[in-house]
Amino acid sequence: MEGLSRRQLITGAGALALGAMLTRFISKAEAKGGTTEKWPWPYEKLDPKKTAEIAYEEWYRVFCGAAVISSIFSQLAEKIGDPYKSFPVDSFIVLEGGMAGWGTICGSLAGANIVANVIIGPRIAGPDCEHGHVIGSNIMKWYSEIALPTFVPSNPKANKDKIVQTTSNSPLCHISVGKWMKAYGFALASNERKDRCARVAASVAYKLVEDLNAWKDGEYNEEVAWSPAKHFGITGQQNCNECHGSNIPEAPKMKK
Amino acid sequence: MEGLSRRQLITGAGALALGAMLTRFISKAEAKGGTTEKWPWPYEKLDPKKTAEIAYEEWYRVFCGAAVISSIFSQLAEKIGDPYKSFPVDSFIVLEGGMAGWGTICGSLAGANIVANVIIGPRIAGPDCEHGHVIGSNIMKWYSEIALPTFVPSNPKANKDKIVQTTSNSPLCHISVGKWMKAYGFALASNERKDRCARVAASVAYKLVEDLNAWKDGEYNEEVAWSPAKHFGITGQQNCNECHGSNIPEAPKMKK
Repeated sequence: MEGLSRRQLITGAGALALGAMLTRFISKAEAKGGTTEKWPWPYEKLDPKKTAEIAYEEWYRVFCGAAVISSIFSQLAEKIGDPYKSFPVDSFIVLEGGMAGWGTICGSLAGANIVANVIIGPRIAGPDCEHGHVIGSNIMKWYSEIALPTFVPSNPKANKDKIVQTTSNSPLCHISVGKWMKAYGFALASNERKDRCARVAASVAYKLVEDLNAWKDGEYNEEVAWSPAKHFGITGQQNCNECHGSNIPEAPKMKK
Repeated sequence: MEGLSRRQLITGAGALALGAMLTRFISKAEAKGGTTEKWPWPYEKLDPKKTAEIAYEEWYRVFCGAAVISSIFSQLAEKIGDPYKSFPVDSFIVLEGGMAGWGTICGSLAGANIVANVIIGPRIAGPDCEHGHVIGSNIMKWYSEIALPTFVPSNPKANKDKIVQTTSNSPLCHISVGKWMKAYGFALASNERKDRCARVAASVAYKLVEDLNAWKDGEYNEEVAWSPAKHFGITGQQNCNECHGSNIPEAPKMKK
């Protein structure tokens, strides 16, 4: 501030100098690891039910993946501010329909993996950050094995009297929604199917907050439950025969 | 600044007051859409080859998905600064192996979709932002149909004399890497397979920068090429019979 008069500070010239100073302040903060590349990000325990209700409503604005992210980051942005306020949540609408409609990973699961790894950190950031990877991976196993949706919203937009729950045995959107549509007979464009997927996003958000709260309390002690690369020599899901039938190929082995 | 003396500004009291003022400035900027929730993000054209070389090297640090994101955002952070500097790139290591090793969407494709939608914007942000969705979706079709990898790095870590290229007919990690491993006979843990996936990340980053540069020039005029929800009534990829065989189920239709 040396060499700047009070008058300069409240005029255009001062504003420019102040701008330059701000830039220096901000760069310094960032060089120290700043707000985003230092893990874990600050976390305050959230209410799973409230989070799930937000995810359900947000589904109708930004669909599955961004709804899960928004349900958690919007609350943390309010409680904590940055780095959550600087995360471009709405861009993750692209996770919808298994990535832009291609039916690959369920967007709610992609969103959950992103949330866990953004908050707790990438597994390469040190032993304190490995739980992000574990929570993300194990929520895919939970999702594959449980009858979904588990969460019932306070004000459902459809399926008000009852809803069929189905077990996907897969983290893939195409298989998860396909099995539900087959069991229930509703089309992709129906209000019933939309409500089902909004409830799935809410169910995943609920489970994710339970896990994050346990982690915050030092009580999340699970290890990765599904390691196909280690056991089968290839990345993959757990229901090989559903696509391969009985003729499951064996992955090439390392030469001794 | 009224009421603050020059002396106050260069002392602790001044720093506190300045801090409060900064907070007001920043909050105001954010309330207006600020740096991250206003699209498109500033973009300067990048060199596809240089980007691909960065992606190749970054693969060995943060793997496929984060390597694609890092190859583009690290250059834009250097050229432009924020909002790119505030994006937690390394967290996206979780995209590896089709999401934490589950073999779903190829991490390079997930990374490409995220980059396109973070820069250009979510499709709900207005007609100027729809190209993010289109570029992301169409790069999955390109990936599925072309023999990969297309990019040859300057200093490959393996496959130095030759490399087999394979066509996945799918955006899934399990299928893409599985077909390559079958054709070439190398294990997942081999240096040859790692080099192959690093080259795939580099190939996707190269193609993505070509598309982003065309978009920046107003010359990206493609429309979404694969719309399974519209045509088949379910999200999905384009090779139905590869998993279903000839017995492809029909999705429930809307009641008239």
